[in-house]
Amino acid sequence: MNEYAQRIGRLQQKLQAHQLDGMMITQNVDLYYLTGSMQTGYLLVPAEGEPRFYVRRSVARAQEESAAAVEPLGSFRGFGAQLAQTFPQFASGSAVTLAAEFDVLPVQQWQRLQSVLPHVVWKDGSMLIRETRMIKSPREIACIREAARIIDGALENALAGLKPGMTELELMSAVEHYIRLHGHIGVMRLRGYNQEVLTGVIGAGEAVARPTYFDGPAGGQGLGPAVPQSASRRPIERNEPILIDIGCCIDGYVIDQTRTAVIGDLPDDLRQAYDVSEAIIRSVESMLKPGTLCEQLYLHSLVMAQEAGLGDHYMGFGDDQVKFLGHGIGLEVDELPVLAKGFRYPLEPGMVIAIEPKFTFPGRGVVGIENSYAVTDTGFEKLTVSREGLIQL
Amino acid sequence: MNEYAQRIGRLQQKLQAHQLDGMMITQNVDLYYLTGSMQTGYLLVPAEGEPRFYVRRSVARAQEESAAAVEPLGSFRGFGAQLAQTFPQFASGSAVTLAAEFDVLPVQQWQRLQSVLPHVVWKDGSMLIRETRMIKSPREIACIREAARIIDGALENALAGLKPGMTELELMSAVEHYIRLHGHIGVMRLRGYNQEVLTGVIGAGEAVARPTYFDGPAGGQGLGPAVPQSASRRPIERNEPILIDIGCCIDGYVIDQTRTAVIGDLPDDLRQAYDVSEAIIRSVESMLKPGTLCEQLYLHSLVMAQEAGLGDHYMGFGDDQVKFLGHGIGLEVDELPVLAKGFRYPLEPGMVIAIEPKFTFPGRGVVGIENSYAVTDTGFEKLTVSREGLIQL
Repeated sequence: MNEYAQRIGRLQQKLQAHQLDGMMITQNVDLYYLTGSMQTGYLLVPAEGEPRFYVRRSVARAQEESAAAVEPLGSFRGFGAQLAQTFPQFASGSAVTLAAEFDVLPVQQWQRLQSVLPHVVWKDGSMLIRETRMIKSPREIACIREAARIIDGALENALAGLKPGMTELELMSAVEHYIRLHGHIGVMRLRGYNQEVLTGVIGAGEAVARPTYFDGPAGGQGLGPAVPQSASRRPIERNEPILIDIGCCIDGYVIDQTRTAVIGDLPDDLRQAYDVSEAIIRSVESMLKPGTLCEQLYLHSLVMAQEAGLGDHYMGFGDDQVKFLGHGIGLEVDELPVLAKGFRYPLEPGMVIAIEPKFTFPGRGVVGIENSYAVTDTGFEKLTVSREGLIQL
Repeated sequence: MNEYAQRIGRLQQKLQAHQLDGMMITQNVDLYYLTGSMQTGYLLVPAEGEPRFYVRRSVARAQEESAAAVEPLGSFRGFGAQLAQTFPQFASGSAVTLAAEFDVLPVQQWQRLQSVLPHVVWKDGSMLIRETRMIKSPREIACIREAARIIDGALENALAGLKPGMTELELMSAVEHYIRLHGHIGVMRLRGYNQEVLTGVIGAGEAVARPTYFDGPAGGQGLGPAVPQSASRRPIERNEPILIDIGCCIDGYVIDQTRTAVIGDLPDDLRQAYDVSEAIIRSVESMLKPGTLCEQLYLHSLVMAQEAGLGDHYMGFGDDQVKFLGHGIGLEVDELPVLAKGFRYPLEPGMVIAIEPKFTFPGRGVVGIENSYAVTDTGFEKLTVSREGLIQL
């Protein structure tokens, strides 16, 4: 069975378990995941039987790429009749229960679907597709491994050019130029509404410790209110922590990693905090195996941060602390599982998770480390290949 | 009256005209437009009176930046009670009619709002905010002018390094590196569901003439099915058209322009098609003044393309032709007005429009030109400053 058939099959198991008749997939990333093609259209996955990809544009390219059968989407008004030709459920006139990606589907698009498919009862299927995507195949993990190799090259290349007085933006630009030339697709995809991720956050000193809207432990100052995150134009000085939280997207798959650097040396307390972040990640690694509950990883790390006297600085500061230790990565940067309280998924082979213990010191900077891991049958594979330890230049 | 008060005032006029009690703004770009801050939260704009920005994160940064009054968002369950404190409509228990951005708001977020605000009757307000944003202020136009200056520098810099055998991706990377160092925010924002725009499309010969899902006349081949648009790894050869459709985003505002280049010379028919694209843009310029209906610009250009015997090649080829000549730009790349049949907006001072007549030759390439213009009281200002004419290297 090919990879796409396996993915469809796993989604179908969930549809059956929830007594749904099928799922209407509309989002570009989910379409790509399930068909191998990101063309515009609707993929109907019945709870049993073959899916069909109704493509508006480009039919020609979808036919080249898609593992699912492609049909040109006719007039949208006639979509119901078109579905009835291939799915008997739609011909009977009785109710059909379909899931859709309510976490990303805009209300306007949903209302249009409702108007042309009046017999459909709609349910939120966001978690079904997100849980399907949570378990990666060897081929997907290979893509992330390749992204990890490229981001390491970008890091070393950027570090080689780093000098005092260089701005955060200049350092970020060096990373971005390297990854793009090495195949970064030009965008880091994110699922959450209104969330944007550039190619990460590079920031030093007080700038990177500023509170942000960004749903992460360190968002950065940014270039201004129109992009209130990531690198600023602030020059990087000696003896302040430089947070290098970067990623790239190769063949659709992202990597996410963080290293902390300094030109010169760090004050003792920041150096100690960095050491705690490494101690946390080592300790969490020992728990990274099938069966561990995701929330345990976060709660364990929180205790370690508190025992080190750094609870107030852990994963942000004060009101702006975030309450997680890491997140799944794959086609998007904010995948399942989330390592946070209440996420009681047991770890499973094939999960890929970025783990990022960090400490924020207002006015002074952020220190920490982030590695990405694949959970294996017996433990984990560390996908991140960059050198660890505080990087002193 | 300051700029933000004017923007709110114009939206309020529309709310009143549609007999709405207010609008709940949720999207990051709309929040930035109306408050000057892109922090996460909800902006309630009543049809009359002062708006309030209920901020989840970061309250501190919103307080620094927002022109609207900021209140920390309490528990989401208590959002109704919080609104009632400041808006008497919510205290009475009778129905309140609010617009929301149904074109971008995900169903899940909407359902959460419905559950905590059960007395609200929701209406689609997408066009109200999009029409408000359609008319730019002098300050907004100044941002786009600055973006135009930077993209011209990027173009000249990239052309200076262009050699046969260079890949599309390498040429694109040169543009991207230049604009980023000059303040490009790192993302080009787009409103349409599933649509992505990188920093444009650079493509040569057959690669750029391939059909794509992208809602534009030339999407490009891309690096693979995971990013089926824009630059590919194909080397650029002599005597083939190189489409350089690029943009950048400075202080939140985008520019969009296209130039056609060739190393050597073009075959006569492609050169003639390029000349027709310039003739179209010159002719359309003569109609660019207040009062002209948007669709007239497209229909006029279509007649010119057909009279030149190039109707089949205009704005894509065959099934993959798009039916517009241009689009508004501003904080997003796909703003109003659209220059397409059925868009009967009369041009108004303050509209900013990218106009992009292009011709696609399957297997051979795409030629054309794109300039961005501000409509003025008496005509237009061309914001694009790059040299025109086929660029021969």
